[in-house]
Amino acid sequence: MKDNILIGRNAVIEAFKTERTIDKIMIQKGSKEGSIKKIISQAKSNGYVIQEVNKEKLDSLSEGEKHQGVIAFIASYDYSTLENIMDRAKDKGEDPFIIVLDNIVDPHNLGAIIRTANIVGAHGIVIPKRRAVGLTAVVAKTSAGAIEHTPVAKVSNIGRTIEDLQKKGLWAVCADMDGDMMYDVDLKGPICLVIGSEGEGVSRLVKEKCDFITRIPMKGEINSLNASVAAGVLMYEIIRQRMK
Amino acid sequence: MKDNILIGRNAVIEAFKTERTIDKIMIQKGSKEGSIKKIISQAKSNGYVIQEVNKEKLDSLSEGEKHQGVIAFIASYDYSTLENIMDRAKDKGEDPFIIVLDNIVDPHNLGAIIRTANIVGAHGIVIPKRRAVGLTAVVAKTSAGAIEHTPVAKVSNIGRTIEDLQKKGLWAVCADMDGDMMYDVDLKGPICLVIGSEGEGVSRLVKEKCDFITRIPMKGEINSLNASVAAGVLMYEIIRQRMK
Repeated sequence: MKDNILIGRNAVIEAFKTERTIDKIMIQKGSKEGSIKKIISQAKSNGYVIQEVNKEKLDSLSEGEKHQGVIAFIASYDYSTLENIMDRAKDKGEDPFIIVLDNIVDPHNLGAIIRTANIVGAHGIVIPKRRAVGLTAVVAKTSAGAIEHTPVAKVSNIGRTIEDLQKKGLWAVCADMDGDMMYDVDLKGPICLVIGSEGEGVSRLVKEKCDFITRIPMKGEINSLNASVAAGVLMYEIIRQRMK
Repeated sequence: MKDNILIGRNAVIEAFKTERTIDKIMIQKGSKEGSIKKIISQAKSNGYVIQEVNKEKLDSLSEGEKHQGVIAFIASYDYSTLENIMDRAKDKGEDPFIIVLDNIVDPHNLGAIIRTANIVGAHGIVIPKRRAVGLTAVVAKTSAGAIEHTPVAKVSNIGRTIEDLQKKGLWAVCADMDGDMMYDVDLKGPICLVIGSEGEGVSRLVKEKCDFITRIPMKGEINSLNASVAAGVLMYEIIRQRMK
């Protein structure tokens, strides 16, 4: 774990000055004095995920090193680019199949989605630079090694990326309860599948950009699937239609 | 959290004497002296999940109470019975649709599976009494409330339960890489879907009892899905065939 965390105020403040990708910052509950304030405000303005935790959590993560109430998680893995993902599809002679994640915050979900994406043969994954989890050690572990094979690109603006992909001939499809039943939507051909965040689903702005809105059938008391399960069900519907 | 944990040696030893369902026992790393030895050996012979953790973890969970190197997690939720699950199907006038879990150990997976099972309208879930995670607070949270609606039964022997269900007219189907492509297997009618453990998949003994072995298509470098994603994909294939 230790090789992808920065421990203590100075280490974190220094990282702010570099190009280093920070995935999450943990602040000790109630810490407000001195440079912590500066760290929180800069982290907020950079859009980093901030999590308040108790002292024991920080003690355990820093394994004896002085953490002064702050630990930052930095990216463990290299990010790819949209161009590289498109090239992979071209090299394989396949219609592009790209997963676009609109603000997934749970590393277990991101890891499981990368894992499924690899298994269905998707060419890559796109995540936003801000307000979402990045490629941390937990993500890598949950991906069961898929992170080594399936490229993940980080972009500034998900909406603009969808437009770029549409210009390159991809259909953008997202899942939402008011969409058409997934079995009735043509999901063959070049496609980017947009998955919303755990709490909110796909944001309105992103949804408006999509060519198709599709609905996963639901008949229980609960009306939203876990994000990685929903992503899996949709990826497999795409695969089923492509295999026909 | 505190309402479903037992803190300290005496509390745990007392729980062993009752019918109380223990889901997991956490032991402080390196603890071997005195009554801890007795606790470990009794927990092992009862088939409880034992996890070695560091002192900080126990300190943080016990929030100041003296834990003496041991904490036990007890079931937060009531378990149902196989009869009750079968009755639910009957009351709804539907073919029974039951999810049987062969040793799922990760509470996030169990929670996500209960959530999906509710959403697809499955009538209930069966888990084994031993060597698997039970209905803990984490499971309840991950189930997003589904645990309040979809009954979970705990049984002593998964293989025997599958036989019981078969006698009641259900087809048992499990997923394995050497099975027939899931699109080609008839998954309509009364069914119990058997999902294997995270590491090992469906055990040989359980697989031999199944009427059908089905395969989820895979074309990546990684060759096993996350257990809750695999369960979701299979449940939705059943739903798709039933909706046709």
